Amino acid sequence: MTTRIAITCPGKPLRRERADAVLALAEEEFPQVELIFNPQCFVETGHFAGHDGARLEALLDSANDPDIDAVWFGMGGYGACRIAGDVIAGMHEEAHAKTYLGYSDSGTLLAALYRNGIGKPVHGPLAGDIKHDGGDEAIRRVLRYLSGEPVDLEAGLDDRPTVAFNLMTLAMLVGTDFMPDLTDHVVLVEEVAEHLYAVDRLFFHVTQNLQGVAGIRLGRVSAVPENDRPFGATAEDIARYWCDKSDIAYLGGADIGHDADNALVPFGVNTTRT
Amino acid sequence: MTTRIAITCPGKPLRRERADAVLALAEEEFPQVELIFNPQCFVETGHFAGHDGARLEALLDSANDPDIDAVWFGMGGYGACRIAGDVIAGMHEEAHAKTYLGYSDSGTLLAALYRNGIGKPVHGPLAGDIKHDGGDEAIRRVLRYLSGEPVDLEAGLDDRPTVAFNLMTLAMLVGTDFMPDLTDHVVLVEEVAEHLYAVDRLFFHVTQNLQGVAGIRLGRVSAVPENDRPFGATAEDIARYWCDKSDIAYLGGADIGHDADNALVPFGVNTTRT
Repeated sequence: MTTRIAITCPGKPLRRERADAVLALAEEEFPQVELIFNPQCFVETGHFAGHDGARLEALLDSANDPDIDAVWFGMGGYGACRIAGDVIAGMHEEAHAKTYLGYSDSGTLLAALYRNGIGKPVHGPLAGDIKHDGGDEAIRRVLRYLSGEPVDLEAGLDDRPTVAFNLMTLAMLVGTDFMPDLTDHVVLVEEVAEHLYAVDRLFFHVTQNLQGVAGIRLGRVSAVPENDRPFGATAEDIARYWCDKSDIAYLGGADIGHDADNALVPFGVNTTRT
Repeated sequence: MTTRIAITCPGKPLRRERADAVLALAEEEFPQVELIFNPQCFVETGHFAGHDGARLEALLDSANDPDIDAVWFGMGGYGACRIAGDVIAGMHEEAHAKTYLGYSDSGTLLAALYRNGIGKPVHGPLAGDIKHDGGDEAIRRVLRYLSGEPVDLEAGLDDRPTVAFNLMTLAMLVGTDFMPDLTDHVVLVEEVAEHLYAVDRLFFHVTQNLQGVAGIRLGRVSAVPENDRPFGATAEDIARYWCDKSDIAYLGGADIGHDADNALVPFGVNTTRT
């Protein structure tokens, strides 16, 4: 049985050659998978992969198409928050039966879907992550998951409901119309290309706004830009400091990040594991 | 009568030569003002002007000193949110009679003071702003204000309660223990050294979290880093877009920013104007 996966870009565009590489891998190794890259993925309009309306239409067309099994986000970047409200409002019954997979900026959509009980949001590699060293394996992980093959999820998941977010994305989500109730959830966060002082500031904001969660686990904080002076603490020190200050349990590391190893984290309670 | 002003740095340190330049200007032109730079201003501990405890102690010593009339923040940077809770908890009655003046990261303290009804928080130039072209005039503005001389406030202030913040600082404040109730307030925001996509993202977050304000006015968005592609909209476009989307009135420009012209904005209702 064929699994039909539509790829759209709610934020920035995907490079054609990366889509081609993903298509070639899927054709070679996943004959049971059909990938449909929406042409919107390759549109460039200023910062975005098309105007808000174009990104919205591409995503809704895929989500509401009864012949599509899953929506896979092609790239992050920035832009999902500009369309998330209209995405939720425009989703029909068909959209509820699907899996939605991605992370980074598209975590805004995963959050909005989770809040509204629509479909199955899953944190995991984007199609564009084929660019990384070892990116092929990230793509295989997604295609195995979406086509129902056995595949490892993030190793630390337990029977508590769990979500995973880019730290900046989560910081911008709290208090908004798209923020799910994360009471008693384990919250995994990762960050890329932010100064450690900015990570510290984001942890202040997020821990103050996440009262009632079961705890926080810290993924990789990568590509930290060099500052004019050292921050004086590691990312883990920062996580522990703010969790302690906000009476939130710090639950250790997490295998997520802006890299090829970024693990799969289905939102909610994960009753099945391989 | 002498006005005694204590300077402390709740975030990053102040350069000694800038403090010296401020002292020289004050000595020359403001004989009625005594400036007391806390030695903590010049301490460097990793990112900060001393450990959390040192920054806290310096600020509380000044705030609780009955012989000090005003506390002036020397620099912004980052770090006020790490001590704001203990600052508020450690303030005695003497702290309530003072003016607290600064902006940028120290806006976190202005917010916490305003929320708790302590003293008179005022958005305005930092001591370190003497570094700017025309920075002397920024320093004069502060010293006139704090010593009770006639001085212009931000030109657009009306009889509605008003606050002014760095946009990132405000974004990190919303939903936290330090966020004042800004119902019916005019909110002025400015930003520096952030990409326009980040400004857009911050406006999403802030407008979603500022329901009930009287409106937003946009100060200067300066030193925007060049991105790999143009954002496709100006900072004013961004402000209008998100205000419109969140049903918040966009009330035009504001004369605040990370520059020498950064105007004075006393928090709350400004009943006296020159």
